[in-house]
Amino acid sequence: MPATLAWNRYGKSRIRLVKVRRCAEPSRSPTSSGNPNGPHEIVDLTIDVQLEGDFEPVYVEGDNRRCLPTDTMKNTVYAFARHDPVVDVETFATKLAEHFVAKTGVTRVRISAEQAQWNRISPAGRPNPNAFVQAGSEQWTAVVTRDRDGVDIVSGVTNLVVLKTTDSAFTGYPRDEYTTLPEASDRILATSITAAWKYRRGTTDFKARERIRSALVDTFASHKSESVQHTLYAMAEAAMAASVDVTEITLTLPNRHHVLVDLTPFGLDNPNEIFVATDQPFGLIEATVRRSRS
Amino acid sequence: MPATLAWNRYGKSRIRLVKVRRCAEPSRSPTSSGNPNGPHEIVDLTIDVQLEGDFEPVYVEGDNRRCLPTDTMKNTVYAFARHDPVVDVETFATKLAEHFVAKTGVTRVRISAEQAQWNRISPAGRPNPNAFVQAGSEQWTAVVTRDRDGVDIVSGVTNLVVLKTTDSAFTGYPRDEYTTLPEASDRILATSITAAWKYRRGTTDFKARERIRSALVDTFASHKSESVQHTLYAMAEAAMAASVDVTEITLTLPNRHHVLVDLTPFGLDNPNEIFVATDQPFGLIEATVRRSRS
Amino acid sequence: MPATLAWNRYGKSRIRLVKVRRCAEPSRSPTSSGNPNGPHEIVDLTIDVQLEGDFEPVYVEGDNRRCLPTDTMKNTVYAFARHDPVVDVETFATKLAEHFVAKTGVTRVRISAEQAQWNRISPAGRPNPNAFVQAGSEQWTAVVTRDRDGVDIVSGVTNLVVLKTTDSAFTGYPRDEYTTLPEASDRILATSITAAWKYRRGTTDFKARERIRSALVDTFASHKSESVQHTLYAMAEAAMAASVDVTEITLTLPNRHHVLVDLTPFGLDNPNEIFVATDQPFGLIEATVRRSRS
Amino acid sequence: MPATLAWNRYGKSRIRLVKVRRCAEPSRSPTSSGNPNGPHEIVDLTIDVQLEGDFEPVYVEGDNRRCLPTDTMKNTVYAFARHDPVVDVETFATKLAEHFVAKTGVTRVRISAEQAQWNRISPAGRPNPNAFVQAGSEQWTAVVTRDRDGVDIVSGVTNLVVLKTTDSAFTGYPRDEYTTLPEASDRILATSITAAWKYRRGTTDFKARERIRSALVDTFASHKSESVQHTLYAMAEAAMAASVDVTEITLTLPNRHHVLVDLTPFGLDNPNEIFVATDQPFGLIEATVRRSRS
Repeated sequence: MPATLAWNRYGKSRIRLVKVRRCAEPSRSPTSSGNPNGPHEIVDLTIDVQLEGDFEPVYVEGDNRRCLPTDTMKNTVYAFARHDPVVDVETFATKLAEHFVAKTGVTRVRISAEQAQWNRISPAGRPNPNAFVQAGSEQWTAVVTRDRDGVDIVSGVTNLVVLKTTDSAFTGYPRDEYTTLPEASDRILATSITAAWKYRRGTTDFKARERIRSALVDTFASHKSESVQHTLYAMAEAAMAASVDVTEITLTLPNRHHVLVDLTPFGLDNPNEIFVATDQPFGLIEATVRRSRS
Repeated sequence: MPATLAWNRYGKSRIRLVKVRRCAEPSRSPTSSGNPNGPHEIVDLTIDVQLEGDFEPVYVEGDNRRCLPTDTMKNTVYAFARHDPVVDVETFATKLAEHFVAKTGVTRVRISAEQAQWNRISPAGRPNPNAFVQAGSEQWTAVVTRDRDGVDIVSGVTNLVVLKTTDSAFTGYPRDEYTTLPEASDRILATSITAAWKYRRGTTDFKARERIRSALVDTFASHKSESVQHTLYAMAEAAMAASVDVTEITLTLPNRHHVLVDLTPFGLDNPNEIFVATDQPFGLIEATVRRSRS
Repeated sequence: MPATLAWNRYGKSRIRLVKVRRCAEPSRSPTSSGNPNGPHEIVDLTIDVQLEGDFEPVYVEGDNRRCLPTDTMKNTVYAFARHDPVVDVETFATKLAEHFVAKTGVTRVRISAEQAQWNRISPAGRPNPNAFVQAGSEQWTAVVTRDRDGVDIVSGVTNLVVLKTTDSAFTGYPRDEYTTLPEASDRILATSITAAWKYRRGTTDFKARERIRSALVDTFASHKSESVQHTLYAMAEAAMAASVDVTEITLTLPNRHHVLVDLTPFGLDNPNEIFVATDQPFGLIEATVRRSRS
Repeated sequence: MPATLAWNRYGKSRIRLVKVRRCAEPSRSPTSSGNPNGPHEIVDLTIDVQLEGDFEPVYVEGDNRRCLPTDTMKNTVYAFARHDPVVDVETFATKLAEHFVAKTGVTRVRISAEQAQWNRISPAGRPNPNAFVQAGSEQWTAVVTRDRDGVDIVSGVTNLVVLKTTDSAFTGYPRDEYTTLPEASDRILATSITAAWKYRRGTTDFKARERIRSALVDTFASHKSESVQHTLYAMAEAAMAASVDVTEITLTLPNRHHVLVDLTPFGLDNPNEIFVATDQPFGLIEATVRRSRS
């Protein structure tokens, strides 16, 4: 049958890498040789490697001469991690992307990473040099794409769960024959933030993540919200204000509905106090906000 | 700050709908009034509604006059299901899409559905008219997209898990300094098939799903595989051969690695018999195959 | 501080084992040497090994001389699987239990297994000898416990999801000041069956599982249900009637509520036709039914 | 067939309750009427209600006269939460247990709760009065059991993930014909702590949780570990030392194995620096430590 391979991509997913930096604060003095008795640092990554390219013979003829095994991709990640300090995941991912884009047939490489967050265990306020507690389900993300045009770097956060108990309304919306939702002038607003921001080409300093994360969370907290969309836009603006290197940001905000329980059958009022948290269905609000050229 | 809303989408996700058709085989004689004592049929859907459009005022100004509540979307799905027989999910989703695309500001509607599979309980081979057992984790999918250009319909399957114990090899691949994988002339091949095929505009008969599903599974079983990619392409060709209405198909095939256990430390051989099934990392192979215009 | 180790247990969880039987139907003619070109069979198990015993020195003093590594437990499972046909998981698990109970300090061994179900891929009704499709989320379970008193064997099924559209009611229940539930004379009943039945000591034939599974499912389908409890009891009785070797059975039946959607705001009736399937909260009904000594 | 109902339990699971305390710090001055403009507090609970009792007629005869609907249990939880400040979940759960144990037929009530942890969003170190960020996957647990003998209260934590990069060894263990594990004098130790401690009857102050949690985490960090068991025991002792009201504690510690990657094929050493984090199989260590009567 006349068919053509219109698009293809392959690689290794969920390569789990934990690196222990066994010297004192290499991230701050990378040229120092380190102190072997100093505090340890850990980097906890889950990495996906994906290649696109001219791989028709692999698909159509079963000819593997261009098909770098995904097992080799995994090995490469571990080997690269040995001598790379992995100070920031964006730079580490870029090195991996440069390595794979040089392989025969490859036209585009996508390195995607999630970084789990760990805090030091600190008995009585004194940080333990070698022990950590996981900071939660929040993950830091990075996606590096390398093709003939160059490198694009998108960083982000995901699973960052926030909730506010006031300063959120949803009113003035259109009603049709299927609308039953009562207007809410004061509701709970809760979401799990996924954000992904794109850096301008040539960015080398990726420390903006902390500032952007704070801008997102603090704006969520302080915004007088007319809708999830309204708050999303304010969060996006704040994120871009936090770093001049960010050219655009995409936010994905599921609306984790908290429904006021009707207690009147039990002779009780419910002055915005007792809610049932629901998992599904949920609203889902997504948008990309871009810095204007001026 | 000078910023613009570059893209936006919102809607309701995971609307859980179970419809019981309480009359005899309405899917085959939809004009009949049905037999109330006949066998029941069930349709078990999880639906996402997503709208794109000219919604800048919602985001930028908190003006909700165009913001149809996602709660209304949910209500609409249930109300439409009341009088629609939901014989095939593609047609039902298209009606929903037509409804929402007429709303003020909307430029594009995406209705996405997953259909859980149920079989009749059949004691001693006699089907019970009203009782069902879930057929497994396999889901049938449909995505209907409606914009100014018209309607696109993509159907598929997901979570369809298959395994073969022979006729799968992976040899002849390039080796670099990070390659340790031994060549395998006879290995286990296992995957969880996700397939999504696009119908030509104007298709109204969506019964091809069964034929396409069989083509995918049977080709997986019979193919002499040189790689996941090689089998993917054969499966895609077979799927398109099964329905002339299919213009392209995208397959996503995670490689569920089964690693031969080294039993030599225990004085045992392992002639392709004892495997450890691993979850991560996993290979991930994706491609789109398109029907050629001839 | 004066403290004592009151109870302890340790072991390896989620040992993933796939065995390919590369000879013709050993399960039916186990003494035959098999036909290497015959059809393959697969056994897909996830096994937990757990030991209890006199291990105080391990906990209190850090003395590991009695602490068989959990890694060794894993190796043992794979090595035992090499020469055991694993015709039924109960017998295989019993052999493992006998092995571990002989270790120094061990007083009790628990081997727990889940078996994934695979069907042959059968193009045009002809079974492929080497290719399989996963039968769904249903798993077969076995728990073998070995201590000084002997061996107890409990088999079961889990994740067996069933639904009926009629012959289920819930009426006549007590009402208090917090009751709002309307009585239902005809509702959807859906559950995910977990069953675990205990065999009398000395049972060696474990083929009863198919009969018991059918008894559970068929009774669910045909029972005139006054409550989940009522149907649970009928299912338990039917299961015990299906095998004289079963001395008791425990059933765990979550009530997967399907809530009738109120369509009256849209001018529509809803004659038991449109339901929302909910995940949480859910009713949970559990009971053990025991064969009476008579 | 002669069968008897040997044991039964039923109830409602996963009742999701979020309570907003809309007055100033009621937890510290419960007699105050509160300040409506003060900071909000949230309590985020998932509650299971389970009843045991003399319910044979429900199961055997389909007689529901004693079968309090699980829907009523859910309503009761929400109604009780309206006027209870839910300062600690143990006291709230005890009130629910007292309510249900008075119902006809009930002999035993089990109220189980998980409490999600939220921190205030604090821009520039100043806590927002109404906005929160989820502290992670850690949950606080409580199980209250009420029967004729009285009330037992077990509190705990779960999903508390910790890791240490040194001071953990595993050596001196027995070797058999299936042992291949190399001894490790310095390894990563990682686990997800689940702890459940029992209070002596009559305990009314449940603020010990913070101290016990700190004792568990700090001991994990500082202990010179010879095995997971060894550290478990030290953690249990420390927990009991942190509160005289605790009579016993059960710890469940999965061993989240971090395997040193062999980099020698790539001409690289690996001085305890590059690890692969594995999900399965995993070691699982459980024990109960009890305060001695002296």
